[in-house]
Amino acid sequence: MDTQDKETSPVWQFSARAQALSGSAIRDIVKKISQRPEVISFAGGLPSPATFPIDTIRAAFDTVLSREGKAALQYSPTDGYAPLRTWIADTLSTNGARITPEQVLMVSGSQQGLDLLGKVLINEGDPVIVETPTYVGALHAMGIYAPRFVSIPMDEEGLNPAALPEVMKRCGGRASFLYTIPTFQNPTGRTLSHARRVALVEQAARQRLLVVDDDPYRLLDHAGTTYQTLLSMSPAAVVHLGSFSKILAPGIRLGYVVAPLALAQKLEQAKQGADLHTSTLTQMMAYEVIKDGFLDTHLPASRKIYAAQCAAMLQAMEQHFPRGATWTKPTGGMFVWATLPAGIDAAQMLDAALKENVGYVPGGPFFAEAPSPNTMRLSFATVTPEKMREGIARLGKVIAASQAVK
Amino acid sequence: MDTQDKETSPVWQFSARAQALSGSAIRDIVKKISQRPEVISFAGGLPSPATFPIDTIRAAFDTVLSREGKAALQYSPTDGYAPLRTWIADTLSTNGARITPEQVLMVSGSQQGLDLLGKVLINEGDPVIVETPTYVGALHAMGIYAPRFVSIPMDEEGLNPAALPEVMKRCGGRASFLYTIPTFQNPTGRTLSHARRVALVEQAARQRLLVVDDDPYRLLDHAGTTYQTLLSMSPAAVVHLGSFSKILAPGIRLGYVVAPLALAQKLEQAKQGADLHTSTLTQMMAYEVIKDGFLDTHLPASRKIYAAQCAAMLQAMEQHFPRGATWTKPTGGMFVWATLPAGIDAAQMLDAALKENVGYVPGGPFFAEAPSPNTMRLSFATVTPEKMREGIARLGKVIAASQAVK
Repeated sequence: MDTQDKETSPVWQFSARAQALSGSAIRDIVKKISQRPEVISFAGGLPSPATFPIDTIRAAFDTVLSREGKAALQYSPTDGYAPLRTWIADTLSTNGARITPEQVLMVSGSQQGLDLLGKVLINEGDPVIVETPTYVGALHAMGIYAPRFVSIPMDEEGLNPAALPEVMKRCGGRASFLYTIPTFQNPTGRTLSHARRVALVEQAARQRLLVVDDDPYRLLDHAGTTYQTLLSMSPAAVVHLGSFSKILAPGIRLGYVVAPLALAQKLEQAKQGADLHTSTLTQMMAYEVIKDGFLDTHLPASRKIYAAQCAAMLQAMEQHFPRGATWTKPTGGMFVWATLPAGIDAAQMLDAALKENVGYVPGGPFFAEAPSPNTMRLSFATVTPEKMREGIARLGKVIAASQAVK
Repeated sequence: MDTQDKETSPVWQFSARAQALSGSAIRDIVKKISQRPEVISFAGGLPSPATFPIDTIRAAFDTVLSREGKAALQYSPTDGYAPLRTWIADTLSTNGARITPEQVLMVSGSQQGLDLLGKVLINEGDPVIVETPTYVGALHAMGIYAPRFVSIPMDEEGLNPAALPEVMKRCGGRASFLYTIPTFQNPTGRTLSHARRVALVEQAARQRLLVVDDDPYRLLDHAGTTYQTLLSMSPAAVVHLGSFSKILAPGIRLGYVVAPLALAQKLEQAKQGADLHTSTLTQMMAYEVIKDGFLDTHLPASRKIYAAQCAAMLQAMEQHFPRGATWTKPTGGMFVWATLPAGIDAAQMLDAALKENVGYVPGGPFFAEAPSPNTMRLSFATVTPEKMREGIARLGKVIAASQAVK
C-alpha cells in the first residue's frame, strides 16, 4: 500500500463475521415501496396499526411514571421486571409443565432472543436446522455466528418430523438446535398440526436436539383457537421466543425468551454484555397494560381485523390469480405464501409489479439452501379489504402477463 | 456417557464464547448490597434518581402518543428516528468537523454500541487497547469476541499517549481499536487533559489506529465546562459513543454511536440482526424532551446535585481515610478511585466493610491485565451529603483496621 492509499483508506478492518454481513434485501424492498404511497403493498411484515392500543398504552405510561417514576427510569436487573416475568411464566404454564419466572428472560424484541441464542449456542460451522422456507430475520440474526444452515422440508401441515433422522444425518449427527415457527409461520402462514407437534418433540428427544420455538403469531388465530406450545410438551428441550410486537405493538421492542434454567442463565449473561437490560419503563408499562386481562378483549378485536383482511385476500386470489398458481390458506397470523407457475421468477417480476403499483416480497431470501424462485410472501396485515381486492387484481394481471412471456 | 447421564444432561452444548462467559462480579456485589437498605452504598454505577425529569418524560410520552401514536408504536428503520439523529449530529458538529445524521446509529444504550463494535471489528485474538483501569462492562461486552486486551497506562491526566508506540509494539503493530473514556472516566473519575487529547489523536493517526471514545459523563462537569470531543478532533478515525443514561435517565435504554460512514453502515447491519431497531417510541419521546433546549436548564440542576455530593465525599475522605491512602479528585461524572496503602486487598476487605454497613466495589475487575488489589471505586452519585460523611467515616475505620492487621 503506498502513502496515498494509506491516507485515504480507513483505519479499521472489519472482522470476518462483519465482512460476511450484508443488509436485508427484503428491508431494502420494503423501504423502497414504503416511499411510494400509490403502491398497494403486501411486502411489509408490519402488524396493523389499527390494532395498537394507543390510549391504553398512554394511560399505562402515565400510571407507571406517576406512581413509581424513579424506579421506572433507573437501571434494573438484566433478567427483567419480576412481575412481568411471573405473568409470562404463569401464562405459559400448563398442568403438565410448570414454567418458573427464573426461566424467563426479557429481551428487546424476540429478534434479540435469536441473536443471543446464536451467541451462546453456535460455533462457526455448527449445523442449525431451519424450515424450508423460514424467517429471513432469523437467518440474518444467526448467520453472523456462521452456522451451516440445514433445511428440513415442510408441507401444508408444517415441517415434517419424519424427515428429522435424515436431516440429522446431513448434520453429521449433531445440530446446535432446530429453529421453527410452528404457528402461522413467517413466511408461509402454515401451522404445525397437533400430531406433528407430538411427533416433533418425540423425534427431537430421540435425537437429543434442542428445539427453538419462535412464537409471535400464535394468539392471532382468526377463530381464537389456542395451539399447544412446544414448550409445554417438552420444557427441558425447548426454547420459547415470545413477543409483544403482534399483540400490543412492535415499536416498543419487547419480547422474551423462556428456556431451561441453565440456558436461561447463560442467555442472561450474554444479554448483560449486549445491552445491560431491556427498558425498565417499557416492561413496567406492558405489565400495567396486560395485568388485569386487557388481552381478553383486545385480542378478539385484533383477530377480527386480520380475519377480514385475510378472507378478502384469499377470495381475491381465487378470482384474480391465474391457473397454476397455488397458495397457503392461513387461519391466523399475517402472511400468505404463493407459489407461481414454474418458470416465473418472482424477484425478476417485482419491477413489473411496482410499475402496476403493487408490491410483495419475492420468496428467494426465505430459503437457507436452494431457493424456489417462483414463490412470494404476501402480507394481509396492513391492507384494508377494499384495497386488497384492487391490489390482488393488479398482481394477478402482472403474474398472467409474466406467464404469457414464458 | 451412559444412558442415565444422557437422560439428565442438557440437550444443548454452549458455544466456545459462551463457555468463556460469566456474570459480572460487580453486578453481583451491587445486587447483594442493594438488598440491604441499612448499607450506605458507594458501589452502584447508578445515576441519582433525583436528576430524572419524570414529569417532563411523562408529558413527552403523552404528546408523542397523542399526536403520532401509530408511528410511535410501529416498527421503524434500524438507524433510528431521523429528527433525533439530526439533533445529535448537529450537537456534535463543530466548525472543524461536520457530523452528518447518516453517521449516527441509535442504540439501546451505549453498552449495545460496545457489543456491535466488538461484533464488527474483533476477530478472536485481535488486540484491543484499553485504559488501566477501564470500564468493566466494556471488558464484558467486548470479551465475548475473544480479543487480547492490552493495557495502556494512565495517570492523573488520563491515558498516556506517549506510551502508545510501545503499546502498539506489544500488539504486534496492529490493534482493532483503542477504547477510552476520556472524560470523568469510569472507574477513576479522571479526565484526559486537552494536551493529551491532541497527542492521542496525533499518535493514533500515526499508528493507523481507530479510537473508540465512550462519552457518557462529559456533560456532567461540576462547573459546566465542556471538553472537546475526540470525534471533533479526528472524525475519520474516532467512534463516539453517546448516552442519554446520565443526562435523562438510564432505564429507557437510549444511546448512540457516531462513526465514519462506512463503519456506521456496517454497525447498522449488525444492529438489524441483533434487535431490528431501538424503541421507536422511546426515541420520539427523547426527541420531544430535548428538542427545545430542555437540557440547558436540566443539566445545571443535575450538576449541582453531583457537585455537592462529590465535594462531601472528597472532604470526608480527607478527614477519615488513613495516611497512605490516595484518591482521584474528579471535577465531574460519578466516581472517585481510591488507592489504599499497599498490602490491603480491597476485595478481601469488603466483608468487613459490609459488616460496618458500608459498600464499595473492589478495583480488581476493572483491570484487563495485572490488577491492583489495593484499589476501590466509590460512587458519589446516589448518596446524600449527610449519609456520605457517615459512610466514608465507616469506611475509613474499616481501612484503618485492615491496615492494623497487616
